[in-house]
Amino acid sequence: MDRQKLVKEIKSRNIDFSQWYTDICIKSELIEYSDIKGFFIYLPYGYAIWENIQFFLNKHLKKSQHQQVYFPIFFSEKLFQKEQEHIEGFTPESLIINQIGEKKIQEKLILRPTSEVLFSQYYAKKINSHRDLPKLFFQWCNVVRWEKTHKPFLRSKEFLWQEGHTAHSSKKEALKETKYILNLYKKLGKKILAIPFVSGKKTQTEKFKGAEITYSLEALMYDGQSLQAATSHFLGHQFSKPFQIKFQDNELKNKFVYQTSWGISTRLIGALIMIHGDDEGLVMPPFVAPIQIVIIPLNLKNQNILEKSRKIFNQLKRKYKIHLDEQKKNIGWKFSYYEMKGIPLRIEIGSEELNKEEVTIFIRHNFKKIVVKDQNINKTLPILLKKINDKMFQKALIHLNQKIYKANTYEEFKYFLKDKKGYVKMSVYEQEAEKIIKKETGATARVILSEKLITKICPITNKKANKTILFARSY
Amino acid sequence: MDRQKLVKEIKSRNIDFSQWYTDICIKSELIEYSDIKGFFIYLPYGYAIWENIQFFLNKHLKKSQHQQVYFPIFFSEKLFQKEQEHIEGFTPESLIINQIGEKKIQEKLILRPTSEVLFSQYYAKKINSHRDLPKLFFQWCNVVRWEKTHKPFLRSKEFLWQEGHTAHSSKKEALKETKYILNLYKKLGKKILAIPFVSGKKTQTEKFKGAEITYSLEALMYDGQSLQAATSHFLGHQFSKPFQIKFQDNELKNKFVYQTSWGISTRLIGALIMIHGDDEGLVMPPFVAPIQIVIIPLNLKNQNILEKSRKIFNQLKRKYKIHLDEQKKNIGWKFSYYEMKGIPLRIEIGSEELNKEEVTIFIRHNFKKIVVKDQNINKTLPILLKKINDKMFQKALIHLNQKIYKANTYEEFKYFLKDKKGYVKMSVYEQEAEKIIKKETGATARVILSEKLITKICPITNKKANKTILFARSY
Repeated sequence: MDRQKLVKEIKSRNIDFSQWYTDICIKSELIEYSDIKGFFIYLPYGYAIWENIQFFLNKHLKKSQHQQVYFPIFFSEKLFQKEQEHIEGFTPESLIINQIGEKKIQEKLILRPTSEVLFSQYYAKKINSHRDLPKLFFQWCNVVRWEKTHKPFLRSKEFLWQEGHTAHSSKKEALKETKYILNLYKKLGKKILAIPFVSGKKTQTEKFKGAEITYSLEALMYDGQSLQAATSHFLGHQFSKPFQIKFQDNELKNKFVYQTSWGISTRLIGALIMIHGDDEGLVMPPFVAPIQIVIIPLNLKNQNILEKSRKIFNQLKRKYKIHLDEQKKNIGWKFSYYEMKGIPLRIEIGSEELNKEEVTIFIRHNFKKIVVKDQNINKTLPILLKKINDKMFQKALIHLNQKIYKANTYEEFKYFLKDKKGYVKMSVYEQEAEKIIKKETGATARVILSEKLITKICPITNKKANKTILFARSY
Repeated sequence: MDRQKLVKEIKSRNIDFSQWYTDICIKSELIEYSDIKGFFIYLPYGYAIWENIQFFLNKHLKKSQHQQVYFPIFFSEKLFQKEQEHIEGFTPESLIINQIGEKKIQEKLILRPTSEVLFSQYYAKKINSHRDLPKLFFQWCNVVRWEKTHKPFLRSKEFLWQEGHTAHSSKKEALKETKYILNLYKKLGKKILAIPFVSGKKTQTEKFKGAEITYSLEALMYDGQSLQAATSHFLGHQFSKPFQIKFQDNELKNKFVYQTSWGISTRLIGALIMIHGDDEGLVMPPFVAPIQIVIIPLNLKNQNILEKSRKIFNQLKRKYKIHLDEQKKNIGWKFSYYEMKGIPLRIEIGSEELNKEEVTIFIRHNFKKIVVKDQNINKTLPILLKKINDKMFQKALIHLNQKIYKANTYEEFKYFLKDKKGYVKMSVYEQEAEKIIKKETGATARVILSEKLITKICPITNKKANKTILFARSY
């Protein structure tokens, strides 16, 4: 049977999670491999998810006075060298160009792995007075990092992202911006991706190279690994000093600006798949879904069924991303196909629905069917879509909370990490313990949960613990 | 006086058009130079124009079943070498990378100057049957071409563009697509950029390297030079044969697909400035303007004036891109500033306007002022904005038509080109005449106006003329 065949092509996620993930990405036509290893093609169905993310963030960023810009893809090596920690962190994965065609060029070009130095240089040139502040720029663009291993959406040599770069007159304002953005990203997760996050500061080892503080949102994948889904950095004076970004305050004193930078990338699409998907395929949260509703007439030869289907389609098409499938294909195949694509709602219209003046609605995320009277469709749909988003979020939140374990000993730590496959919370002596844990278990510090005075002894180093940290393996 | 100072910084366009153009780009904060020669920063005011262009095209492209995607920035040299004419045309300006950091890489990477080869490779892999056709993909992205001379928006090493790549089962359908897109670009010009174009086929010399036919839209700049504003290519089998993009038709015969490709870029912003701008600065057509209306209360100390200004602002802000300026700055300075920015409408509210329950509206493109009763603002604005767009288009069209000269002799040709500064129409013997004209006058064939049988003798080559061609100097 067609249905079996279609789904058979996807590995079960409990048998081989990694293969399941790749199968879904390819079979549901989100993404495709390109001719060079590590580069991917974002297909219409995958790109449409990205557009919906862009739409949500643009709306909120612009409402909060942020301005969209576009800065060049290349900058000079000289610029890159200005901030030491930053260049050391990014050089290994940066594309450096010293030749155009057959000609060597004088000054090497860096293909942006991130754009702090370019924005800093612009700010240094243009900011003079407190009246020029704040500067709240952001851009959507491609960046290149020469990664060695690759996975669709999660790790690739080129990816698409949104990066924000702001400059402020006070530390307080810059910290407020850092938090504002972190909360905006959380909202993106809750409102349209149905993804709950663990949030907190990164450790010194894990923070962004060039930041004073990095806040991160971490999401838990189905296989128990963590994914860094968004970051918001307080850069302090780390760029403004080497780049000499100064302003005159209202007492005519020259001061350095405080900066922030922040970003999300196409990784979020990977997170979405890994968190919500199941053995039938994708499960799209309704407010980020490229198609929210598909209407399937169960008998194409019945003119009345077709007419009713078209009528409902026309009635809903202005409000929803909706598709009417009149293809001459097996109904079972169609059901499987749209389940694989993760379409949140399927409206089925057959003879029974026609006679009873109702429709059957299949809900993808929980496989339930409900029957709705024709005259109630309009008022049911918005409530239903909202409910689905909230339920998907709740389900992911429950999974997340269940998977946070507290370890008092290293034995417990290893047990929770390997057998329970989740986050492990432990009070440790920062850097030193992280190093040992990473080497011996592969887990890294995801976020700091508490920096309060701790009376415990770190079970890894036997020194006095100074941080309570959430550890996990990660993508 | 402030007003004088602000405008004084912009060269008169009749004295030094090139300097006038650069002044406007920089002073009105559309764009900024980057740290590497040939790269530019698109600032918020410039980028917002681009967003409006994107919005218009996306709406129309999606309505006509085109799908947005994103293909990688790099492709392999092997891929590039498949179509001979294409690689010969693009190699000199393509960025070729053979080293990452300190490491030589095996296979050279090409940074896309355009993406025909990547889309062709994908189509070769994915198209099997006539049921897979048509494929109507497009993307918005950055491309890099190693240009030697640079001008904001018009010529740079990196620019932003929209490129479309389609595959069809028949020649007829592919030609129809080529024309559909050409007309869509014309519509973009007429409806939101207020730019009229001359359109036609390119000559063999000037066509896109890899196309069978290139259609071009040419716009006339204020200084009489032509700017290629958009192109739509019929690629025929030129890529499908070397890339082996085949499909099985409904009689089970294997056939090559017919392809098209088409694009517009940030050059359009340059065209917009050069066509509409004047000595006071930018003149923005209302439907592409980042700010359509600015409200200026003439006396900030009068609470009633402020209240009325805010009331009108709040009333209009959902329908228009509108700005209310309550800054404590000189009114003359404000007027000059927004004139320089090219804001289509300025609503002035002073004591007189308050007492008479009216507003004064200043129209940027013709410097006229009108008085509108408060209760008529809502119905006046949409009509006024539409009228401005149409008048700006008409004005540019009249200028364009005046500047098309018909030459019968080479003497006339040179006179029209140099003294009249415009397009010159002449019946010539294609390639040979083009070569001589380009060498001796700097003018190139912009479009072919007629390929009908011509009885004339080409005044350049003394051979029988075979094409009537429009020549001009160009950007």
